[in-house]
Amino acid sequence: MDAKNITIIGLGLIGGSLGLSLKSRGLASHVIGVDTSDEHGRIALERGLVDEVKSLEDAVGSSEVVFLAIPVDRMVNMLPEVLDLVDRQIVIDLGSTKSQLMESVSGHPRRGRYVAAHPMWGTEYSGPQAAVEGAFENKAVILCNADQSDADASLWAKEMFRQIGMHIIEMDATDHDLHAAYVSHISHITSFALANTVLEKEREDNAIFEMASAGFESTVRLAKSNPSMWVPILRQNRENVLDVLNEHISQLRKFKSCLEKENWAYLEELITDANKIRRILK
Amino acid sequence: MDAKNITIIGLGLIGGSLGLSLKSRGLASHVIGVDTSDEHGRIALERGLVDEVKSLEDAVGSSEVVFLAIPVDRMVNMLPEVLDLVDRQIVIDLGSTKSQLMESVSGHPRRGRYVAAHPMWGTEYSGPQAAVEGAFENKAVILCNADQSDADASLWAKEMFRQIGMHIIEMDATDHDLHAAYVSHISHITSFALANTVLEKEREDNAIFEMASAGFESTVRLAKSNPSMWVPILRQNRENVLDVLNEHISQLRKFKSCLEKENWAYLEELITDANKIRRILK
Repeated sequence: MDAKNITIIGLGLIGGSLGLSLKSRGLASHVIGVDTSDEHGRIALERGLVDEVKSLEDAVGSSEVVFLAIPVDRMVNMLPEVLDLVDRQIVIDLGSTKSQLMESVSGHPRRGRYVAAHPMWGTEYSGPQAAVEGAFENKAVILCNADQSDADASLWAKEMFRQIGMHIIEMDATDHDLHAAYVSHISHITSFALANTVLEKEREDNAIFEMASAGFESTVRLAKSNPSMWVPILRQNRENVLDVLNEHISQLRKFKSCLEKENWAYLEELITDANKIRRILK
Repeated sequence: MDAKNITIIGLGLIGGSLGLSLKSRGLASHVIGVDTSDEHGRIALERGLVDEVKSLEDAVGSSEVVFLAIPVDRMVNMLPEVLDLVDRQIVIDLGSTKSQLMESVSGHPRRGRYVAAHPMWGTEYSGPQAAVEGAFENKAVILCNADQSDADASLWAKEMFRQIGMHIIEMDATDHDLHAAYVSHISHITSFALANTVLEKEREDNAIFEMASAGFESTVRLAKSNPSMWVPILRQNRENVLDVLNEHISQLRKFKSCLEKENWAYLEELITDANKIRRILK
């Protein structure tokens, strides 16, 4: 693959880590960063995530590929604006929800230049200081409605994701949002709620945190995730998330009922059912 | 510390890992294993977790220290039986619940020889094949009602836990069980319930698992935990766990209400509150 001039809009965890991946794999001859925060731009330059920081218009005008890695509420406004500026550039978003985004550019004259992607990688940290080398290796990336992208744009995106170590799954945007509610969005809600459960208690007694073990840490670490990223995701995916959350609460009520009724045989059955997750997680 | 002849009853994840720690730190001159499963005994010998496997009576009779690392339902029967066999030996349990266990030996003529301990370490795996080297390093161990133990027994236990890398927290058994419900038991229930939520859906569609990311894995991994360990823990700690579970369900309902009413300001507030867990988890 020829190295290209590439713009990354949004120099946070995802955009910043992508800058590092593109540079280390020789996929970018020059990486231009765009960010509303001067501080983020400065850190991204210092850390070598990008080579230069420019305004949106200048950056898009001098690039062959433009990535968007911003919160999904800003994405639905920004994506059509970017396509307005585009001639033959390839535009790729990296957001966590897709249905509303698809609507925002449906019928846009440059729709074909756009490829919808959701790399299944992230951490509970945010900002350019959280960006890491090798972030996307051995992870999945979901490409949505790839048939609506021009063949050259779609092909380049696929080859690029493969070269940074990802395997590609193709899916309809509607299916994507449903599945994302199950494998990502609900995990964040349970983690937020668990943190609040324990923090509520901690007002009374600090000792519990001295006891916190790796198991607790693992179920609660996502609770550190940034609200400016997660409120928009949960808002855009509201209906799917509500369905999954209702199901999850009803699953928790089964455990509650076992404990209330001292039905230990059923509790054992519920746990044995849950163990089947071993099939999926090594 | 002089190396001692030590018996470990229960050659699973915890007992097996303790065998490795005691041997590598030179705290045991000889480790005798006791297990109801011949297969576990065989694996423990093969893996070098213990030096010898014996019957309970023979093992206790030829040891200076006896550890119990068995499910908490069997513990409440086994601990008084072991104390019946004891003369000057030190007896230490490593179980996850303490109140009922304390009752089971309250008034026992050898009560002073017993030290109640809960090392805050574990994984979602079980059996001697899951035992690992260095398991307890930099973890906490809770000692309960240490004033009811003979001074020499309590002192030896503390020094031993320090030498395998643990820091000691002392606590009343009742407080222990309350706190354990918050920092350990509820995490397991949320994980079991989350696994069941997703597995329920998976019957319809397998694609969601191809998408499963590290965040999902982290919140769900405890769902692999063994029911023969966890049913007894949840049963013995039923009242505390029910209180925490009710609180957790009401926290989840707040998220549900935000989504239903599209109250995004309150959702942001809930997530910002949850972020305060950063104070506790690095």
